Amino acid sequence: MADQLPETSLQIRTLVTPEGKLELSLESAPVKVPGPDQVLVRVEGTPINPSDLGLLVGGADMSTAVQGGTKDSPTISADVPAGGLRAMKARLGQSLGVGNEGAGTVIAAGDSPAAQALLGKMVTCLGGNMYQEYRTLHVSQCMALPDGTTAEQGASCYVNPLTALSFVETMKAKGHSALVHTAAASNLGQMLNKICLKDGVPILNVVRKKEQEDILRGIGAKHIVNSSSDTFMEDLISGLVETGATMGFDAIGGGPLAGQLLIAMEAAANRKMKEYSRYGSGTETQVYIYGRLDMSPSIVPAGVGFAWNLSGYLLTPFLEKAAPEVRERMHKRVIDELNTTFASHYTKTVSLAEALDLETLHAYNAKATGEKYLIAPNA
Amino acid sequence: MADQLPETSLQIRTLVTPEGKLELSLESAPVKVPGPDQVLVRVEGTPINPSDLGLLVGGADMSTAVQGGTKDSPTISADVPAGGLRAMKARLGQSLGVGNEGAGTVIAAGDSPAAQALLGKMVTCLGGNMYQEYRTLHVSQCMALPDGTTAEQGASCYVNPLTALSFVETMKAKGHSALVHTAAASNLGQMLNKICLKDGVPILNVVRKKEQEDILRGIGAKHIVNSSSDTFMEDLISGLVETGATMGFDAIGGGPLAGQLLIAMEAAANRKMKEYSRYGSGTETQVYIYGRLDMSPSIVPAGVGFAWNLSGYLLTPFLEKAAPEVRERMHKRVIDELNTTFASHYTKTVSLAEALDLETLHAYNAKATGEKYLIAPNA
Repeated sequence: MADQLPETSLQIRTLVTPEGKLELSLESAPVKVPGPDQVLVRVEGTPINPSDLGLLVGGADMSTAVQGGTKDSPTISADVPAGGLRAMKARLGQSLGVGNEGAGTVIAAGDSPAAQALLGKMVTCLGGNMYQEYRTLHVSQCMALPDGTTAEQGASCYVNPLTALSFVETMKAKGHSALVHTAAASNLGQMLNKICLKDGVPILNVVRKKEQEDILRGIGAKHIVNSSSDTFMEDLISGLVETGATMGFDAIGGGPLAGQLLIAMEAAANRKMKEYSRYGSGTETQVYIYGRLDMSPSIVPAGVGFAWNLSGYLLTPFLEKAAPEVRERMHKRVIDELNTTFASHYTKTVSLAEALDLETLHAYNAKATGEKYLIAPNA
Repeated sequence: MADQLPETSLQIRTLVTPEGKLELSLESAPVKVPGPDQVLVRVEGTPINPSDLGLLVGGADMSTAVQGGTKDSPTISADVPAGGLRAMKARLGQSLGVGNEGAGTVIAAGDSPAAQALLGKMVTCLGGNMYQEYRTLHVSQCMALPDGTTAEQGASCYVNPLTALSFVETMKAKGHSALVHTAAASNLGQMLNKICLKDGVPILNVVRKKEQEDILRGIGAKHIVNSSSDTFMEDLISGLVETGATMGFDAIGGGPLAGQLLIAMEAAANRKMKEYSRYGSGTETQVYIYGRLDMSPSIVPAGVGFAWNLSGYLLTPFLEKAAPEVRERMHKRVIDELNTTFASHYTKTVSLAEALDLETLHAYNAKATGEKYLIAPNA
């Protein structure tokens, strides 16, 4: 087996120096021969998710970014302000690989039956360091895709689909009956609406533009409020009364929005109360911040009652704590509904070198709604 | 029995008018004859806690307060700004009684054995509307005090003692091993330190003045940091590393402090990590806001990791959810340690009329550390 293997794998690396420079580059690293329970995947499609950008460009000020290197081996460097440097203290001086997920063909496999079963198959992977040509992974980090599935179709099976499914699982596990979601016209937000429509879970969508309302209406969303509207708070409270949502997932993180959700949930609960309680409604409300599109602080005003909760949220610990049957059910659903509920559409497919073209990077780093880039490391 | 009963009970009332005026007054209301499971308590001592002030003066601007009425029947009125009015929407136009807790003598009791057992006893009560001469309560809202206990000694058995005990119970129930507490030199903070010292629970105290450090050192507190110090964040992180505290209780609520606790907990966790994770340490951190000495919004910056939680906290729902044996254990401990761990000291004892003297109200509404007022409605 070993003699057929590629020896090196070109990959994107990100480094923040202790002096405050972000340095992105392409590097060639030796390919690791798979152990008994491992497979070697030729990566054919790997998406650029907001969470990947957090690692790739981190706290750097990308308006200072400059292009270096050559067309085939580009580099990008940028200044990291003091605040960003402090937040990234633990990674200073370490060259890191990027890319949470992706899909590709298993071109070598370890001796175990589980590994051998994947040989030659198109698999989807959650591995980290996927922005490279060849990635060695444990079999538990891969799922076989149905025959005929392309890498593009299978590249985004984990982060967005499982996160969206985990919202509904979390809602049920914690005894809530409806959801509110912000940045709701995102790729993830659209999946979440499709899941909720299918499962009969009321969902209130918060967007900030008319076009985003239209996107969501187009896929059948019923409850949409626009945070740019003058009547936003009133609309939000009415939407929460209508849906009964007492749990929210917020992709923005910074600024007033998460606090507004909590205030509006408490106001909605108060509308249903018969007697005054000075401490608040007593209704348990929960907002999870699962993204930080806005890196400024989150603001929680008084007036949220006393049974409110604002928390961080990440898929990985959810999956670690979930019962095996829950994980299995989620995985199965992603595969079953890969071309419907969980279909991803890419604005553009780029090579590893193109991903480090400064103009291209500015384009995907804008995180525009409906825009999503795919890297094809072996194109 | 009924012919010995007082017919009316003088009491403090608070009203916020829809037009935006706070009106405090003394009113005389009919005494309710106790039902089978009820007792009538002659209230002899009832403390003014910060939580009582929240109901008494609410969102009013007390710099606009003016005195009215007579010396024996004083009134106070003040303007309520738009923000305060919005927050108090649910209570507009309702005259409300004040006073969470207090102690006094049972002067009449219903027919049930539980009620009869309390007749003639000094009891401590959690009833609301305690700022009055006579209060009819269900037996479950009263605890008999040991013979010889004065109303002053027994007036504050519930709010601060049970809240302090509930912090340690919550810490254990949620799998944490140490606490951080803000406004730590308060009456409640001192009780909490005594509990933690006795139970061997490490506690990190956050104060803002040198005198408050001295108060806590005087009762044996080991870990104290001062938020006014230039090295506050560094001291806080070191204190969290030393104590291992990953749960905090914050009495301030508004401003940066709660967020600083979360940031520092994450920084302390990162100091113990071997490998970089871009999402954060993964250590579960929890800060509860149990008071709002600062009514401005709470600020949570990025950099708190992904397993952080910021929540409201109130004693009542804790007690409602607690197992009966937990409640019983807590109550027993308060009574057993009434003159040691849970001893309250009062700056001044005032009558109902004196409590509505404007100068006196300004004095207790300042919520100065170590200052606490007691109302003696029957003095």
